[in-house]
Amino acid sequence: MSKLTIYTYDWLPEFPRGFVRDLRARWVAEETGRDYEIATVPVHPKSDAHKAMQPFAQVPMIEDGDVSLFETGAIVLHLAEGSALLPEAMRSEITQWVIAALNSLEPMISNWMTSQLSKDMPDIFGPPASEELEAQFLKSMNARLAAMEKLLADDREWIAGDFSAADIILVDVLRQAGDATKGYPALTAYIERATARPAFKQAMADHMKHWEDADAAKAAQAG
Amino acid sequence: MSKLTIYTYDWLPEFPRGFVRDLRARWVAEETGRDYEIATVPVHPKSDAHKAMQPFAQVPMIEDGDVSLFETGAIVLHLAEGSALLPEAMRSEITQWVIAALNSLEPMISNWMTSQLSKDMPDIFGPPASEELEAQFLKSMNARLAAMEKLLADDREWIAGDFSAADIILVDVLRQAGDATKGYPALTAYIERATARPAFKQAMADHMKHWEDADAAKAAQAG
Repeated sequence: MSKLTIYTYDWLPEFPRGFVRDLRARWVAEETGRDYEIATVPVHPKSDAHKAMQPFAQVPMIEDGDVSLFETGAIVLHLAEGSALLPEAMRSEITQWVIAALNSLEPMISNWMTSQLSKDMPDIFGPPASEELEAQFLKSMNARLAAMEKLLADDREWIAGDFSAADIILVDVLRQAGDATKGYPALTAYIERATARPAFKQAMADHMKHWEDADAAKAAQAG
Repeated sequence: MSKLTIYTYDWLPEFPRGFVRDLRARWVAEETGRDYEIATVPVHPKSDAHKAMQPFAQVPMIEDGDVSLFETGAIVLHLAEGSALLPEAMRSEITQWVIAALNSLEPMISNWMTSQLSKDMPDIFGPPASEELEAQFLKSMNARLAAMEKLLADDREWIAGDFSAADIILVDVLRQAGDATKGYPALTAYIERATARPAFKQAMADHMKHWEDADAAKAAQAG
């Protein structure tokens, strides 16, 4: 097995912790039993080495032997190759749901969440939306959440057959909607089912410990 | 070879023609030499049969033998399987760029374009953004376009090796930005290079003919 390195930030303030996308790479590594190392890039200012690996200067990136990748959908599909998370017969359907999560749900969730976070943190999240536009963002997001609620309530435990790469991406996208999913019982149960998995819990614990260690290193440096 | 059917709308007004996403499915079919049939779903009101195939009631969907799929990224990857558009050794990198186009470019382009289109068509595109938010959308989009400009200017004709599934999705996403790409010469040349391909031209001609035929059918019915 080649060496796997997951890149994330050296430090972040508290509010995004638990939601930084390196969690998705950690989760798929745990589900597939892959050991990995964490490497970091500075959150501020962004380094040239970071931009050379990730043109939009986001995280995570991975190095898996000779392969260097960004975009969590591609990272999760790559690390799921050959495992029960990506059976060959289900490849197209699983890819469909990875992309649906990232293109047909995440942008609507992101617009809504940005409209909420910008109220308290306009320096980070930009100017708040008008009440009318905020209502439009909420409506667009809820239309998509309601469609997912119907699918999950009707006929399935996981989104595409057994637990798969698609569930990792879809659940982590849905988690970003926070309380907005609360009105959808099948969605809520789906998120709870997925996040109760030992692999998710381990990934989240390691993710949070990374930030605590980063706080300690920062404090030691300042002290 | 199994029978391929691409689903699109029965009719649409003029403004979205040339940009409806069935174009991406037609393009990959042309590049890979696949024959296909077009089937339609009503644009208004949306049918239950449509929602059963596509939970968000969008188009396109495809049926390829027993496989039913939506999300153009997944459709293009599926139809590219086994062809020169998706060499096995490039699978992860090509998937990365398909997803980057759909998750790290299209949402920013869509926010900007929606803010522009809503000025004339608020009934369709929702309430206009404030000037401040519009400026934020423009800035976010331009940051991503500038990153793509740098990559394409530096070192590559196509985004991931030879012309691939990733170029089909990336170019069609960039086309949606319209005049906003004009300030980026390498991006502009990349879009021109891709849309000069015979497969794109054929796909676009067939796409536009579909709407002209739909107009004629509508006129005949009204007449």
